Amino acid sequence: MEIHPQHRAVTISDGDVRVPVTAISLAESPGGVPNADVHVYRTCGPTADPVEGLAPMRQEWIDARGDTEAHEARPRDLADDGRAAVRRGAASEQWRGRRHEPVRALPGKRVTQMHYARNGIITQEMRYVALREGVAVEKVVEEVAAGRAIIPSNVNHPESEPMIIGRAFLTKVNANIGNSAVTSSIAEEVEKLTWATRWGADTVMDLSTGDDIHTTREWIIRNSPVPIGTVPLYQALEKVDGKAEDLTWEVYRDTVIEQAEQGVDYMTVHAGVLLRYVPLTAERVTGIVSRGGSIMAGWMLAHHRESFLYEHFDELCEIFAAYDIAFSLGDGLRPGSIADANDEAQFAELRTLAELTERAWAYDVQVMVEGPGHIPLHLVEENVRLEQDWCHGAPFYTLGPLVTDIAPGYDHITSAIGAAVIAMHGTAMLCYVTPKEHLGLPNRDDVKTGVITYKIAAHAADVAKGHPGAQVRDDALSKARFEFRWHDQFALSLDPDTAIAFHDETLPAEPAKTAHFCSMCGPKFCSMKITSDIRARFGSGADAESGMAAKSREFREKGAQVYLDISEVRTA
Amino acid sequence: MEIHPQHRAVTISDGDVRVPVTAISLAESPGGVPNADVHVYRTCGPTADPVEGLAPMRQEWIDARGDTEAHEARPRDLADDGRAAVRRGAASEQWRGRRHEPVRALPGKRVTQMHYARNGIITQEMRYVALREGVAVEKVVEEVAAGRAIIPSNVNHPESEPMIIGRAFLTKVNANIGNSAVTSSIAEEVEKLTWATRWGADTVMDLSTGDDIHTTREWIIRNSPVPIGTVPLYQALEKVDGKAEDLTWEVYRDTVIEQAEQGVDYMTVHAGVLLRYVPLTAERVTGIVSRGGSIMAGWMLAHHRESFLYEHFDELCEIFAAYDIAFSLGDGLRPGSIADANDEAQFAELRTLAELTERAWAYDVQVMVEGPGHIPLHLVEENVRLEQDWCHGAPFYTLGPLVTDIAPGYDHITSAIGAAVIAMHGTAMLCYVTPKEHLGLPNRDDVKTGVITYKIAAHAADVAKGHPGAQVRDDALSKARFEFRWHDQFALSLDPDTAIAFHDETLPAEPAKTAHFCSMCGPKFCSMKITSDIRARFGSGADAESGMAAKSREFREKGAQVYLDISEVRTA
Repeated sequence: MEIHPQHRAVTISDGDVRVPVTAISLAESPGGVPNADVHVYRTCGPTADPVEGLAPMRQEWIDARGDTEAHEARPRDLADDGRAAVRRGAASEQWRGRRHEPVRALPGKRVTQMHYARNGIITQEMRYVALREGVAVEKVVEEVAAGRAIIPSNVNHPESEPMIIGRAFLTKVNANIGNSAVTSSIAEEVEKLTWATRWGADTVMDLSTGDDIHTTREWIIRNSPVPIGTVPLYQALEKVDGKAEDLTWEVYRDTVIEQAEQGVDYMTVHAGVLLRYVPLTAERVTGIVSRGGSIMAGWMLAHHRESFLYEHFDELCEIFAAYDIAFSLGDGLRPGSIADANDEAQFAELRTLAELTERAWAYDVQVMVEGPGHIPLHLVEENVRLEQDWCHGAPFYTLGPLVTDIAPGYDHITSAIGAAVIAMHGTAMLCYVTPKEHLGLPNRDDVKTGVITYKIAAHAADVAKGHPGAQVRDDALSKARFEFRWHDQFALSLDPDTAIAFHDETLPAEPAKTAHFCSMCGPKFCSMKITSDIRARFGSGADAESGMAAKSREFREKGAQVYLDISEVRTA
Repeated sequence: MEIHPQHRAVTISDGDVRVPVTAISLAESPGGVPNADVHVYRTCGPTADPVEGLAPMRQEWIDARGDTEAHEARPRDLADDGRAAVRRGAASEQWRGRRHEPVRALPGKRVTQMHYARNGIITQEMRYVALREGVAVEKVVEEVAAGRAIIPSNVNHPESEPMIIGRAFLTKVNANIGNSAVTSSIAEEVEKLTWATRWGADTVMDLSTGDDIHTTREWIIRNSPVPIGTVPLYQALEKVDGKAEDLTWEVYRDTVIEQAEQGVDYMTVHAGVLLRYVPLTAERVTGIVSRGGSIMAGWMLAHHRESFLYEHFDELCEIFAAYDIAFSLGDGLRPGSIADANDEAQFAELRTLAELTERAWAYDVQVMVEGPGHIPLHLVEENVRLEQDWCHGAPFYTLGPLVTDIAPGYDHITSAIGAAVIAMHGTAMLCYVTPKEHLGLPNRDDVKTGVITYKIAAHAADVAKGHPGAQVRDDALSKARFEFRWHDQFALSLDPDTAIAFHDETLPAEPAKTAHFCSMCGPKFCSMKITSDIRARFGSGADAESGMAAKSREFREKGAQVYLDISEVRTA
């Protein structure tokens, strides 16, 4: 999918594994010096008509492993789409594309990427992510086997392009979509999926809580080139008419299997919210702000029983191992305000998430751990430090965190500050926050703003971590800017459309795209123009023998003392 | 000036010093528990018709000190408004409001706040900022005397409301406005000033480089309740038809005095760009990106002479001391790209800025030091650490920094990340960056977005620094959010208009403003509703004897062990 005329989808391959990469072509520098293409990690995105769905690229890899069998563990049930569908006798927009026939592991088999990695089996998925990240496949195997990285890849989502989440790799961004009882249609949600991946979302969570939940998810998964995450508890609650007390393990288990067979790649499970932790939230400013956490707290207090998610966790592990679903261990007690940050409730739950991480690993099930939320800037690092320490390096997946509560309408920004910092310290994936956070559901524009804002935070962290190659795009864009290659500057931007639109607001004419200035300062005050004039007149780094370059070397040779005799420079 | 019906301008006073503060009134919490007003630091902003100008509040304080005299050091010169004005025979929109009669220090006197502080004189300006910041006036005197804080207050800008810039006080935000050869009118610039201060800009810099420079500045200063900063070099260059080589100390000096008599409170002076540093930029990716820095580099290389700003620095100090103009020592060699961050050129100049700081202090002249620019996140802290160390705690004033180069159109965000972090580590004032950075001049909307974004970064830093009272607003807003006091949540927001607009996009009806849910999750999934239901049923922290609160205390008494017998909680 083209974002800009200078963007081309090229393929880098390794035998039967072909990875689509976006190549950004650049003009020559002054003097006819060519500039190499810049390659950008980006899924090629939906290539098919939404009603057809994507091609099941991974199907042959999965089949070839010969450890799965066609299997439908549960009959379709119209109630999965909610009461409105039952009333109507059908979901509002039934899926008409390729019908996916569910498979699961053969009896006694585990089909997780972690299982393969631990047994030294190098899958196509591992080779794919190694090519995509530009690292050795051995590194991928090592990190996945150790649980420090995950490759979410349900055997029932063959359309997804493998990607890896771990601190040793590029920082990833998740975009939440999904309808609520108050808003939105299936078509809108599919468009949000396409739109989010177009701007660079690495995974998408479908958090639908309204009508047509099952069918909306079918449309999304069949059209998704990225892993899809869900919170099964939301649909389970729908099945019991929204009465938390009426939830049962059986209803929940049935919902997990329903979603497993559709192809959900990772599921948020709030199994760390234990009965004894609930009182710890009593004196908080904002109590429990996680939907899943509050639903489970309500259930536990109503029944005076321990969480059924915690008590049946091993059964869940067996199910997840049979489909390769990754756990996203939910932080149901995450702080919802600066005042509640890093408190007893939050860290008590994190201790339990660490215990659950090891229990899941015993089944070769991939795990990431969710984190906050609202955290003041000086307490951000502690969150990732403790998670990495207690959870033995399991990938951390945080929501922001927001570093202040006072800017509703701008929480993509309050949270991007915390997100960049927590990612720099080792968080592997960032869940985006849109400008609508706390106020409403994001529309198409909000989704784009949220994704771009989080690509900024993730990239800033990758540059700060010294991730190999991360700074190439920064350097190419700055070089283009300094050389007034406006078209290249736009093409290298995260959002070329907006950069062009802003530039053209004041200087729309095409000649301005090659002008040696912009409307900020006008020609006379353009510092970059003055500098290039200076270089032209007194030489530059491009000319190794130039006066200025020579002076520069001489300066360093003298131990970078800044006390040279001015006369020495006169010769320049 | 009212931003929201729940915002009232109240006055806190200390004898003859009256400080306007915005009080945000709040509704009661459930159970009729009242909530105290939240006071917000904000200038009351322009109260008069722009063509009249503001009342000269500080005039009597200045006169009463008896150390200034009416004085016009230079005649008005139409050329100050540029060639267009000369051609026309007049500035395009001459100032028609109160004509300010310039004053300056009596011979041999110094009229700077630093001079008074060092001599133990407590000025009304110091008492004003103490009230505004809620600190003891002794603290203000101590910090100003030591040079760790400045109160920019030109004796010719009596309309300004005193404010203090220093790491021990609230982090401040500057907004740049000003026309260029390509855009904008006087009226537009005055409106940007009013608009920027309305949203919370603590100072404004007029960087005009187009026509009517002198008159535009007159309109801005006479209407500004905040300190005004400029870069005199820009107007000086206009006076020599934009030919850097033709600049002279005399033209520059004359321009400084012209602006001093109008009332400019602080001036950026790029006196740290020395001839021997220019070669250090030769091999940079983006050379010199500061306008002032490149203009001076061009002049020095053309004449093979040391900077006239550096050589005449003591003369400048004498002038600044006679009007109480603060230096903003410009970082003319700041990095313009991630690749050039923290390099030899940048730090060589910082060493010289440290030397100039001490030279200015010898004249009792107030000083702040400017900082970058473009800095990757892991190198941000080093910038403020070195500046505070080398410049003996002089306030640091940074532009962002931007933590990546790849997001033109979103540089308010790329820079807010760096700004929040550098402020947390001790930067005293942040120069905003708007979405138009690198692409064009900001319009009215861009100015608002830039200011709000930087208020977020500054506030996040104040909360992280544990600044007294900084978190009060966060806590009040989160409490309002948790109690579904929507109107209070909006009123406490940095931008109530936007928060309300976003909420109303999906739930416009007034009842939704009291509803116990929003469109994000709908009623059934509202975690905060579920939590309050839980509290209602099982008790809450509000009821000290409640089961949950008791459990919570018991938990802590047991040394916060999370292994209680579940049966203990059953009694709850």
